Amino acid sequence: MIKTIILKKRPVGTPTLADFELIKEEKELKIEEGEILLETKYLSVDPYLRGRMSDAKSYVPPFEVGKPINSGLIAEVIESKNDNFKKGDFVSNRLDWKTVQVSKGEGLQKVDPNKAPLSAYLGIVGMTGLTAYLGLHEIGKPKKGETLVVSGAAGAVGSVVGQIGKILGLTVIGIAGSDEKVELLKSEFGFDHGINYKTTDDMKAAINEAAPNGVDIYFDNVGGEISDAVLFSINKFARMIICGAISVYNSTEIPTGVSVQPFLIKNSALMQGFIVSNYADKFPEAMKQLSTWLGEEKLTYRETIVEGFENTPQAFLDMMAGNKKGKMVVKA
Amino acid sequence: MIKTIILKKRPVGTPTLADFELIKEEKELKIEEGEILLETKYLSVDPYLRGRMSDAKSYVPPFEVGKPINSGLIAEVIESKNDNFKKGDFVSNRLDWKTVQVSKGEGLQKVDPNKAPLSAYLGIVGMTGLTAYLGLHEIGKPKKGETLVVSGAAGAVGSVVGQIGKILGLTVIGIAGSDEKVELLKSEFGFDHGINYKTTDDMKAAINEAAPNGVDIYFDNVGGEISDAVLFSINKFARMIICGAISVYNSTEIPTGVSVQPFLIKNSALMQGFIVSNYADKFPEAMKQLSTWLGEEKLTYRETIVEGFENTPQAFLDMMAGNKKGKMVVKA
Repeated sequence: MIKTIILKKRPVGTPTLADFELIKEEKELKIEEGEILLETKYLSVDPYLRGRMSDAKSYVPPFEVGKPINSGLIAEVIESKNDNFKKGDFVSNRLDWKTVQVSKGEGLQKVDPNKAPLSAYLGIVGMTGLTAYLGLHEIGKPKKGETLVVSGAAGAVGSVVGQIGKILGLTVIGIAGSDEKVELLKSEFGFDHGINYKTTDDMKAAINEAAPNGVDIYFDNVGGEISDAVLFSINKFARMIICGAISVYNSTEIPTGVSVQPFLIKNSALMQGFIVSNYADKFPEAMKQLSTWLGEEKLTYRETIVEGFENTPQAFLDMMAGNKKGKMVVKA
Repeated sequence: MIKTIILKKRPVGTPTLADFELIKEEKELKIEEGEILLETKYLSVDPYLRGRMSDAKSYVPPFEVGKPINSGLIAEVIESKNDNFKKGDFVSNRLDWKTVQVSKGEGLQKVDPNKAPLSAYLGIVGMTGLTAYLGLHEIGKPKKGETLVVSGAAGAVGSVVGQIGKILGLTVIGIAGSDEKVELLKSEFGFDHGINYKTTDDMKAAINEAAPNGVDIYFDNVGGEISDAVLFSINKFARMIICGAISVYNSTEIPTGVSVQPFLIKNSALMQGFIVSNYADKFPEAMKQLSTWLGEEKLTYRETIVEGFENTPQAFLDMMAGNKKGKMVVKA
């Protein structure tokens, strides 16, 4: 039995389970020479997938209605007619949401379950960690003693950004959506300050108080009103890494907010959209650094593992609603 | 008789003549050893002065109420007790709005009236030209064949940006506020396309039509709705030089508009606030290039010269209202 999750229809606003469909097929997959058979072990659910569910120009093409969704997956090679892979290998790549699938091996990265848990290759030593590390370094250009604000701070990327900030000697302020998350930022991830935006009336004042010397770097995972509030505290030559805008991904109208341009002019400040895949040439160096820090226990991570391939759409919805800590993965 | 223009009170919204005061004093200025006496010849009126009239943190400190306003000036040395300057020299610097003033010579740049008209040192071979050249090069990083959009295109900076764009082999689209200005963009400054935003209902569609290959560089002098519309046509890796936001400088509320963050993420695009003074180390190289192009007649410029020192506030108001072409200067 092969299970596949397809995009049944394009979500309007907040996605629901009705936008997805689980298809079960009783068939056996045969592989040709040069091919391998992959069995899915872990699936990654991420905010950027919401964008791909809409029919809009973006940095990755939209999913097609009626076709499988795809995202970062960890799979095991269960049969191989390709010399580069043998049975029992584990691989990672952007792959279809299927329990079993055929691959020619193109683009697959082998991952070693003895070096890190398999699920970590979707997180701290995978795209999540790379996004945090490369966004902060390549755009943020952090200097010791500076102040870093991170939104979506308890999320997969945000929690790593903050920890790297601390390793580099920055003052780190995290913004998250519950007291429990804010506590976690400080107790587990070493942030200096945490702000619960859901219980804070005046975000401008709260950020100003947490960052008395102003904000030099803003790592933005959420967009919307939280990011608007940060603008009022930025310093001259501030760098804003625009990595995600989860707060507006479900918008059916074009989102509006405070005009950023006057703030950019006043402060000679920079805002740059960040997509990790633009920095593929830096992946090896970044992964090495992340693995080293992980080995030295300078980095820690949280993950929420949902059991069961069929529950992937629900896991995606929960992740979008903020009902998790750290990286959300599904164990197939 | 010495005339001085002071800031009488801080403008609220659009400035009016009542915010300024002309003071006449019957006195004779005496200079000490090391000093020179300067007679104002030309005064520059620029959009950024509006920001300095408000009591807000910005990249230059606000003007003080009751004190003279200052801006770029060209003055003649009419008496000298400083070995570095002799009577008859012409100098340029940010100086007080006074007909006559004493200086110790600090920060003064000598300018040669035989190489370019004196007023041009406030424009094409002064801050205006430097702003256009350095903003386009340092942030825009133009590559032959790319598409450049310029807002405030018939203005002092915008008209130079477009001409440099053409010299560098770009497709150049200008946005301006009258049919006459749009005609000037094409006939005099060599722009490929012009859009009159005042008579265009759908700016998004107009930009899209003028830039069928998308927008690679946006040189933004105006902010507001025009800049919002440009976002919908930007290409991957677009660079947006945020040089001015004249459309919102008179706002008494915090301006709002389309959220830029989703556009930046989708396109891995960059927005950077640009202040020419951050690039002072590049001025000599840039001035040399601008003078060369001017000498080769590859660059042309328009200026509106208002006669009479007393008319400086009115000239400033007219400039802010868009009632001029090219660089606005006052002949004292």
